[in-house]
Amino acid sequence: MTHESGIPLGIRFKLLSDTPQDSAAQVVNEVVVGDYRDLDTLREFARGCDVITFDHEHVPTEHLKALEADGIPVRPGPDALVHAQDKGVMRARLDAIGVPCPRHRIVRDPADVAAFADEGDGFPVVLKTVRGGYDGKGVWVVDSVEEAAEPFRAGVPVLAEEKVDFVRELAANVVRSPHGQAVAYPVVESQQVKGVCDTVIAPAPDLDGTLALRAEEMALSIAKELDVVGHLAVELFQTRDGRVLVNELAMRPHNSGHWTMDGAITSQFANHVRAVLDLPLGDPRPRAPWTVMVNVLGGDYPDMYSAYLHCMARDPQLKIHMYGKDVKPGRKVGHVNTYGDDLDDVLERARHAAGYLRGTITE
Amino acid sequence: MTHESGIPLGIRFKLLSDTPQDSAAQVVNEVVVGDYRDLDTLREFARGCDVITFDHEHVPTEHLKALEADGIPVRPGPDALVHAQDKGVMRARLDAIGVPCPRHRIVRDPADVAAFADEGDGFPVVLKTVRGGYDGKGVWVVDSVEEAAEPFRAGVPVLAEEKVDFVRELAANVVRSPHGQAVAYPVVESQQVKGVCDTVIAPAPDLDGTLALRAEEMALSIAKELDVVGHLAVELFQTRDGRVLVNELAMRPHNSGHWTMDGAITSQFANHVRAVLDLPLGDPRPRAPWTVMVNVLGGDYPDMYSAYLHCMARDPQLKIHMYGKDVKPGRKVGHVNTYGDDLDDVLERARHAAGYLRGTITE
Repeated sequence: MTHESGIPLGIRFKLLSDTPQDSAAQVVNEVVVGDYRDLDTLREFARGCDVITFDHEHVPTEHLKALEADGIPVRPGPDALVHAQDKGVMRARLDAIGVPCPRHRIVRDPADVAAFADEGDGFPVVLKTVRGGYDGKGVWVVDSVEEAAEPFRAGVPVLAEEKVDFVRELAANVVRSPHGQAVAYPVVESQQVKGVCDTVIAPAPDLDGTLALRAEEMALSIAKELDVVGHLAVELFQTRDGRVLVNELAMRPHNSGHWTMDGAITSQFANHVRAVLDLPLGDPRPRAPWTVMVNVLGGDYPDMYSAYLHCMARDPQLKIHMYGKDVKPGRKVGHVNTYGDDLDDVLERARHAAGYLRGTITE
Repeated sequence: MTHESGIPLGIRFKLLSDTPQDSAAQVVNEVVVGDYRDLDTLREFARGCDVITFDHEHVPTEHLKALEADGIPVRPGPDALVHAQDKGVMRARLDAIGVPCPRHRIVRDPADVAAFADEGDGFPVVLKTVRGGYDGKGVWVVDSVEEAAEPFRAGVPVLAEEKVDFVRELAANVVRSPHGQAVAYPVVESQQVKGVCDTVIAPAPDLDGTLALRAEEMALSIAKELDVVGHLAVELFQTRDGRVLVNELAMRPHNSGHWTMDGAITSQFANHVRAVLDLPLGDPRPRAPWTVMVNVLGGDYPDMYSAYLHCMARDPQLKIHMYGKDVKPGRKVGHVNTYGDDLDDVLERARHAAGYLRGTITE
């Protein structure tokens, strides 16, 4: 999707891909298949690139520093990106700059988790491995000291967090360029199902203006303090007592910003490309009163293409974005966007299409 | 741009390109470099394709028939496409189905041109080679029998047409699928400079509703009668006496439809792809009251990239579409789209950006 948004600007991409079947590898012109964990592969790949950016946060920090030492601009840079790679580093830094987070602490063992629980409202407690988590993986909600054993088995540091009593989840998406320009997209509501993002509503319905502004300012301030270049997604909890707390950070175009492809004047992908190249940023404002994104998860039918006929015929305004991935149950294989004046209608159209593509709606 | 619009649908493209430098060859994943005039090249390329379509009309009709005989669907098919390839065939067919055209006749020599002039209002007369013309090439406006010699030098058939006394040029863009569904984009005004499209305004300002409807119906009827599959652009003259006459036909996404990329719910490129694959068509309605497209022509500065800084900073809502072409004076190297509620503002922004990118505005 980043490549797609770079085409109109005449930006040429060179892609380092794990396999020739990866989504981007199917559509980018110049593809190198290789392992991003291997420094020699990265160095060979980076030769001749004007700038390097990412669609995930898993490239080792020390490799990125080595590329920078070679004179290749890496955006976001390793000193910023580490905050999206390591939840321990992220929490410590957000504390230091005064950004409100759930109560948290690095814990050493189940007894330490019990102590953490006792210091607050007791169990349940949320445990997260500090690195490598994604879409609910590497996250446990534990109700007792016995259940707290599992996260420690991998032998990696574990972060304990209070289980926040939230009304809903929000996301504040901002983009920042090396010369310091930044833009903020409207704050959205993000609805999760089983730890995986399901629906995003832009803007977040019935969100108090002051709270929305606070969330945008928080995201802009994090981007500045952490020297983020490119897109930053700040996942937030809206608490029952009217606060916003930071849940996670992502430094790349993010699922909570996929609505911008059809719903904003400039999409998150286009603005990420512009930021990474230090071009002036595009307008982040919405084009319609409401835009809804619903993820398409893999279902039981491997061939979603045949479902296109129904979805396209039913709703000629529907925007389908498929990633060319093999369908596996529960895997994110695409998303749909709808937009319009009436939120109920826009939501129904997006949910119907995503459900039909997945095979859970058969009307 | 067709590839770009196919990515979200998961449509994989294989491109036959004259050179590795062609615009599409820079961004498509699977590129074969070869000559479309060579049947063996075409046959080898077509193997394994589900369907073949085009971004120009120059593939020889007999080659397309050979591909069809091999069992490869060609859309639009050769029997339709010939009307966009050969102006003589096009005029004869439009006469047969009762579509109004300028007065015309195939002429054999300058004396025949003089006779054609005498039958009407005299000189000037428009002469066109029946095949191979593009952007004003292969078209002459002659004021005397002496000037009429030039077009005959190439030894190809020449079509004479009355020089229509038009108020302005319009274009009616429609898309039709094999199962017979068709959609019509709003009729646009197309402004030419030295025979080359310069500005397109969507919808055409102050166009009488009845005339707009007549133009749309005419385009839909041509698409049906000629069995067009995919995008059909009908270039029209709006005459001083309130008629619309067909000037040219193009059977592919067309410059007069580039505004749809940012200005319509479904772009001409996305609908062309859907039609070619016989998927239900998307909504052709505009997303804003006014959308303006201005072509970016090559100027004296080979590096347009540096002009991005100015254009993007001045207008964060501007949509730039560059084709990755080497800049040559007068060559179409991209276009810009703007949209909004106020036509004067939308026009000014598009013209400024295109002029700045070309180097004719230096503010």
